[in-house]
Amino acid sequence: MNTSKIFNPELDLRIERIVDVPKELVWKAWTTPEHLMPWFCPLPWKTIACEIDLRPGGRFHTVMQSPEGKTFPNTGCYLEVIENTRLIWSNAVAPGFRPASARQGGFAMTAFIELADHNGGTKYTATVLHENAAAHAQHAAMGFEQGWGNALDQLVAYAKEKLR
Amino acid sequence: MNTSKIFNPELDLRIERIVDVPKELVWKAWTTPEHLMPWFCPLPWKTIACEIDLRPGGRFHTVMQSPEGKTFPNTGCYLEVIENTRLIWSNAVAPGFRPASARQGGFAMTAFIELADHNGGTKYTATVLHENAAAHAQHAAMGFEQGWGNALDQLVAYAKEKLR
Repeated sequence: MNTSKIFNPELDLRIERIVDVPKELVWKAWTTPEHLMPWFCPLPWKTIACEIDLRPGGRFHTVMQSPEGKTFPNTGCYLEVIENTRLIWSNAVAPGFRPASARQGGFAMTAFIELADHNGGTKYTATVLHENAAAHAQHAAMGFEQGWGNALDQLVAYAKEKLR
Repeated sequence: MNTSKIFNPELDLRIERIVDVPKELVWKAWTTPEHLMPWFCPLPWKTIACEIDLRPGGRFHTVMQSPEGKTFPNTGCYLEVIENTRLIWSNAVAPGFRPASARQGGFAMTAFIELADHNGGTKYTATVLHENAAAHAQHAAMGFEQGWGNALDQLVAYAKEKLR
């Protein structure tokens, strides 16, 4: 399911960018632990662990580390996996689709990465759905737009250097 | 994703039955509003409305009515749709995969209907995952086993009479 009829600007956050790497490389960077960890956190934060079970119901687990060395685990569940096109996961459900009881960060979110060819590069759309306006405001205040934008810049630089 | 490695008896509820109607008819009864409403609630409750958008991310909406005329709407989101084999939905996410904010009944659940051929009939497994032991206990006390069992009996009777 794409986000065209779902996105609600009062609840949701989105970045749309044209990037000059093919969508196949963007997909690889999002779906392979060794190729996700180098770019996933905006520096100076680091991603120190990643597990990916790439199928609906599968586990998407990362551990981020702050510059001071504090660790932040995140566990989500993939909901839709359409190669080179659309990746959806959520922390509202745990792996195996079980309703999630505890959520890191204090709010639930469902994320969509949508990819399309664009003149040899990729039209990249990252959308995050929230349950209510409070979660939307909290995530915006945490710096969603800059954080996801910087991570994408890191992804593009990594893909050009290591994945071509 | 099937439930073989997910089911946890301390958190989850399940009924397993062999029924003497083909799985294609069981599937039809679960996925077509006009063929779901006649059996979905154990009598004397009724199902007075049903909407089905049968795809991952699609809406599954029912309204049940008590014998006294009180109505109980339920809205979930389909997570996996494999024809004649497996149907998964949850109220932990709303249609479009958005994290759900309010849940009717007070607890979140993810339901799996799994169907397999069995000597001309069907091996029918209904599994409901909960987030914690309290939700499990609440659902068990509400009469999960009898309720889902009686509804299945009604489904089988309806399928034999109307769907063969």
